Amino acid sequence: MSNRAAVMTELGKIVVQDRPEPEPGPQEAVVRVEAVGVCGSDTAYYKVGRIGDYVVDGPIVLGHEVSGQVVAVVGEVRNVAVGDRVAIEPGTPCRNCRECMAGRYHLCPDLVFLATPPYDGALVELMAIDARNLYPIPDDMSYEEGALLEPLSVGIWACRRAGLQAGDDVLVTGAGPVGLLAAASARALGAGSVTLTDLSQFRLDLARGMGFDVEASDAPRETTFDVLLECSGAPGVLGEAMTRLRPAGRAAMVGMSKEKAIGLPLSQLNVNELTLSLVNRYNHTWPVAIELVASGRVDVAPLVTHHFPLAEAADALTLGSRVSDSVKAVIHPQR
Amino acid sequence: MSNRAAVMTELGKIVVQDRPEPEPGPQEAVVRVEAVGVCGSDTAYYKVGRIGDYVVDGPIVLGHEVSGQVVAVVGEVRNVAVGDRVAIEPGTPCRNCRECMAGRYHLCPDLVFLATPPYDGALVELMAIDARNLYPIPDDMSYEEGALLEPLSVGIWACRRAGLQAGDDVLVTGAGPVGLLAAASARALGAGSVTLTDLSQFRLDLARGMGFDVEASDAPRETTFDVLLECSGAPGVLGEAMTRLRPAGRAAMVGMSKEKAIGLPLSQLNVNELTLSLVNRYNHTWPVAIELVASGRVDVAPLVTHHFPLAEAADALTLGSRVSDSVKAVIHPQR
Amino acid sequence: MSNRAAVMTELGKIVVQDRPEPEPGPQEAVVRVEAVGVCGSDTAYYKVGRIGDYVVDGPIVLGHEVSGQVVAVVGEVRNVAVGDRVAIEPGTPCRNCRECMAGRYHLCPDLVFLATPPYDGALVELMAIDARNLYPIPDDMSYEEGALLEPLSVGIWACRRAGLQAGDDVLVTGAGPVGLLAAASARALGAGSVTLTDLSQFRLDLARGMGFDVEASDAPRETTFDVLLECSGAPGVLGEAMTRLRPAGRAAMVGMSKEKAIGLPLSQLNVNELTLSLVNRYNHTWPVAIELVASGRVDVAPLVTHHFPLAEAADALTLGSRVSDSVKAVIHPQR
Amino acid sequence: MSNRAAVMTELGKIVVQDRPEPEPGPQEAVVRVEAVGVCGSDTAYYKVGRIGDYVVDGPIVLGHEVSGQVVAVVGEVRNVAVGDRVAIEPGTPCRNCRECMAGRYHLCPDLVFLATPPYDGALVELMAIDARNLYPIPDDMSYEEGALLEPLSVGIWACRRAGLQAGDDVLVTGAGPVGLLAAASARALGAGSVTLTDLSQFRLDLARGMGFDVEASDAPRETTFDVLLECSGAPGVLGEAMTRLRPAGRAAMVGMSKEKAIGLPLSQLNVNELTLSLVNRYNHTWPVAIELVASGRVDVAPLVTHHFPLAEAADALTLGSRVSDSVKAVIHPQR
Repeated sequence: MSNRAAVMTELGKIVVQDRPEPEPGPQEAVVRVEAVGVCGSDTAYYKVGRIGDYVVDGPIVLGHEVSGQVVAVVGEVRNVAVGDRVAIEPGTPCRNCRECMAGRYHLCPDLVFLATPPYDGALVELMAIDARNLYPIPDDMSYEEGALLEPLSVGIWACRRAGLQAGDDVLVTGAGPVGLLAAASARALGAGSVTLTDLSQFRLDLARGMGFDVEASDAPRETTFDVLLECSGAPGVLGEAMTRLRPAGRAAMVGMSKEKAIGLPLSQLNVNELTLSLVNRYNHTWPVAIELVASGRVDVAPLVTHHFPLAEAADALTLGSRVSDSVKAVIHPQR
Repeated sequence: MSNRAAVMTELGKIVVQDRPEPEPGPQEAVVRVEAVGVCGSDTAYYKVGRIGDYVVDGPIVLGHEVSGQVVAVVGEVRNVAVGDRVAIEPGTPCRNCRECMAGRYHLCPDLVFLATPPYDGALVELMAIDARNLYPIPDDMSYEEGALLEPLSVGIWACRRAGLQAGDDVLVTGAGPVGLLAAASARALGAGSVTLTDLSQFRLDLARGMGFDVEASDAPRETTFDVLLECSGAPGVLGEAMTRLRPAGRAAMVGMSKEKAIGLPLSQLNVNELTLSLVNRYNHTWPVAIELVASGRVDVAPLVTHHFPLAEAADALTLGSRVSDSVKAVIHPQR
Repeated sequence: MSNRAAVMTELGKIVVQDRPEPEPGPQEAVVRVEAVGVCGSDTAYYKVGRIGDYVVDGPIVLGHEVSGQVVAVVGEVRNVAVGDRVAIEPGTPCRNCRECMAGRYHLCPDLVFLATPPYDGALVELMAIDARNLYPIPDDMSYEEGALLEPLSVGIWACRRAGLQAGDDVLVTGAGPVGLLAAASARALGAGSVTLTDLSQFRLDLARGMGFDVEASDAPRETTFDVLLECSGAPGVLGEAMTRLRPAGRAAMVGMSKEKAIGLPLSQLNVNELTLSLVNRYNHTWPVAIELVASGRVDVAPLVTHHFPLAEAADALTLGSRVSDSVKAVIHPQR
Repeated sequence: MSNRAAVMTELGKIVVQDRPEPEPGPQEAVVRVEAVGVCGSDTAYYKVGRIGDYVVDGPIVLGHEVSGQVVAVVGEVRNVAVGDRVAIEPGTPCRNCRECMAGRYHLCPDLVFLATPPYDGALVELMAIDARNLYPIPDDMSYEEGALLEPLSVGIWACRRAGLQAGDDVLVTGAGPVGLLAAASARALGAGSVTLTDLSQFRLDLARGMGFDVEASDAPRETTFDVLLECSGAPGVLGEAMTRLRPAGRAAMVGMSKEKAIGLPLSQLNVNELTLSLVNRYNHTWPVAIELVASGRVDVAPLVTHHFPLAEAADALTLGSRVSDSVKAVIHPQR
């Protein structure tokens, strides 16, 4: 059986190579990858070769927003069976350290995460992974939807980190994939109102079409909010948006900035006794993400604006910067 | 202007009397009452004359699930204006005691609550109340929906008391008005699954029609849950349902039982380290209740099975026990 | 090397037998046991042969409040070394299940717990155990104190389960070892006041000597509290004590009752919207227990009223019911 | 009766003037002021005339760390009586706004706070204040200790804001009065270890004498912590100290910096998913502060390094910058 992979052999270069069939270990499954969403971090590795301390220093397979079908399992695997359509949680924790035992496996220092150097990702036809990372999805959920459970998980976790309470008025800065799904999460978790901001009119229109309030970048910024989900990563946005929080307001920073230090007007914000929570991915969100999408409480489909076969992975990886007409690209490794 | 009221003059007897027009004090508003939902507590006062330590010992006007239109305001009232269509939070706290200052105004020992002896309720054409208890409702929300924000508030608060987290599988015992709205709240706050039980097939069918899972009373009880919202008040239900909770499960007791002591198998439940939270009404839930109904995330309309004019209030008050074909009766004081 | 063990061969009978030297597996350590506190559960197994679903059906070694010295380690053990004086956490979780991964390893369904059938306990000279269960204790902490970190852990965890906040006025019902250490924990975690009740004057005097308020059983029960830690397990105590909680009060049930069902006046308690949290042992409490004792913030020494050599384990196991002059017996396996 | 006040008539100038006797309103009490601690904010108003948006624009009486004796009460006052020795909470909330009703009275936009422009403070012989701000102190608590309950309250609240859990290892940056009392609070609330840093050797020595770990400014910074309480207000300290937090660590910012924007390496800190909580004074801390001091769990006495009569208030106000030999100055208005 062939096992084509889209390998980033050097900065800005993707080559389709044939890889050996994966040999799963105990408790692992082999998944035929059906859909891989492109994330900003994939694009960053492709273009710049690093994110913070994670540096690409050899060939790497990108892609960590993944769904597919189970084609083999090894050993005592109970949560999935061959033939299951599944979404994949991309991080595999050690299950032994202080963080894992404290219920914070996502902060495990030995976390093996797809497409984070030195680990390969999912732009491949077949991949082996710990079966406990697999979550069956319903028949009527598409593989594209299954792949988007990963960025949806980021949104759900951001809401949890922000201490979102039912009725909170929520501001989401940045209407890219994560911002839109953070907004959808907030609404599905009982937010009172959800407002998005972005510089891209295309993305604001999409947000409005998904039922959110939107705020143009030149609008007067008088409305205040209980919760801020910063998803833009743009310079200056976090600090300014925090000034719009009400007393006891809570901010979660999802969008990663390239700035070494981010300036915040803490002495001013202090009057309102705000809380700022940083967000590093997610913890145990696949079950709820599946339920929210399967029940129609969250609709991820509108985000998928472009599709690519494996051979055109490079095009998919550079699409993300075209904010004027795209949100999320999905690559189909079997095509 | 006439001001007819449905007055309970003695146990089981309602007489329509003309009352003087209300004279609002400072910060109060006069509301023309348009819809009053009948609650089990109204029926209990009507039939038995008491609930726990609250004893009817004179004529009383029942009804505390209320909506209407503002016809007058006195003094510095900023949150509503004459002409506003409003829902009414029925409890007025003292705003000075330990509980009020701790953010728990609903536990204020001096809470003045509509239709809780010795205070009159809302089965009247015109009533005066602290304007801060009024919440404007959107034009496209009906008065019936506005009245049902009160039992919806019970459901929302039960979820908060239970520490509902997104993704929790929820069991709601009792598919009466509160059970159905607790279920709707759980779903709107991100529950994974929501399952209702009841002895009434009519109510189970209604629950299924609202999109919930249901469980017949003779079904095997093997499924386990993260959260229990006990809304039946029936003997034995709480203890048995708690045995179906998973480790670290959380139960909220909403339904009030007539039993003096409720037996719970705590030594058995202890293994799973469960938490049981009692629920006394709600705290600051109208804003979120309005948002959930206005946005379509909660649909309260299916609950209203019967309508009555003021003169037939007695019929409305006895309807609740007909679980085979009714859920919620609404009285229209202007009819 | 000899390895004497006090084996319960049948109900109410302890025989000292020589056991083979333990052969530790990977990541395990061998500990020379120096002090073993006697717990009510040991006494229950000794006298009745069961606690709930845990049934003794063969010879068993009791004892799970343990300290000692490390005499061997196998494999990559980093947290302790040969020669370390250590306290032992008696439960070993699977580190893989839903509960372990959620940070609730103490609710792991496969937890291996010392002296809980079918697992042997610590009344033995040498025992092997997962090295991660061992915590070094300071040189100036005695082995008796080290053993008592286990019941202290119960007290600390009870405070956490009760949501103890600094300043809470705390009622502890039952001044046995767990009650006294729950009281000490509450004080060390910032409780406002701590009051103990008990039927035994001896134990009340001890409590007073440790600096707590005490309340005789015939005193008028007018004082109210924010938090209740029920540590007596006596019939009727939980329900009655909960009536003394203030609005939003929190109760934790530590003491296990023999009653199949415990009756609680929930309809009455509901007015105050109380929360009842069940308590099943503890989670990650050894580090803080060590700090509290080492710094003098908790003094466990006054609890140890009796000492026994291994050969007199049976006497130690029956001492606990003499509430008139004893609190905690410690067995010294090396004697 | 004379009523001398130390009035700041212009920047850097204090004049003792005779003020009329205060005429208390309903629910108010008159207090004979016995001890007033000098806070950094007093010094800032004295030297610079402003803190953030609060600007001195007329004569003002400084001082908000206060204790004294009740000499008169008006109307229905139940919590204190004439003759009571009391500590004073300096903020009086409106008890009606959204924040007050949410249990966050300290964020009340209409809070009247002693010695915060335009409100006068406590450097006066007699002052009237809402009696609900008064808390009786035990006979054996000195007035100096009573006054220091205010900065102790800041420390207690900082711990609450940081989500301090029993066992947390705590780093306190800045060993001034607030840092020392934040450290004392952390220890009294069950912290595992408490470490202070400061540039002043005098203050580090004092901290060590109070039983805390200390870290010289040139020590290698390898130890990591669960909680950071930033009490220095010095540039760069917050961001650097946050890098020493463990995964899921929590920081509370107490010290106010003069910098308009504080730079934080959020992208780096994000890996550990930290939480930063701002701190604006305190909420309902006097009862617990009194208990902690009265029981000996917190010792505030070592902080008081200097005493002044009212006439030397100006000297007291400038003492705080002498970090080499002072911590806290107390002014005695009756002297």
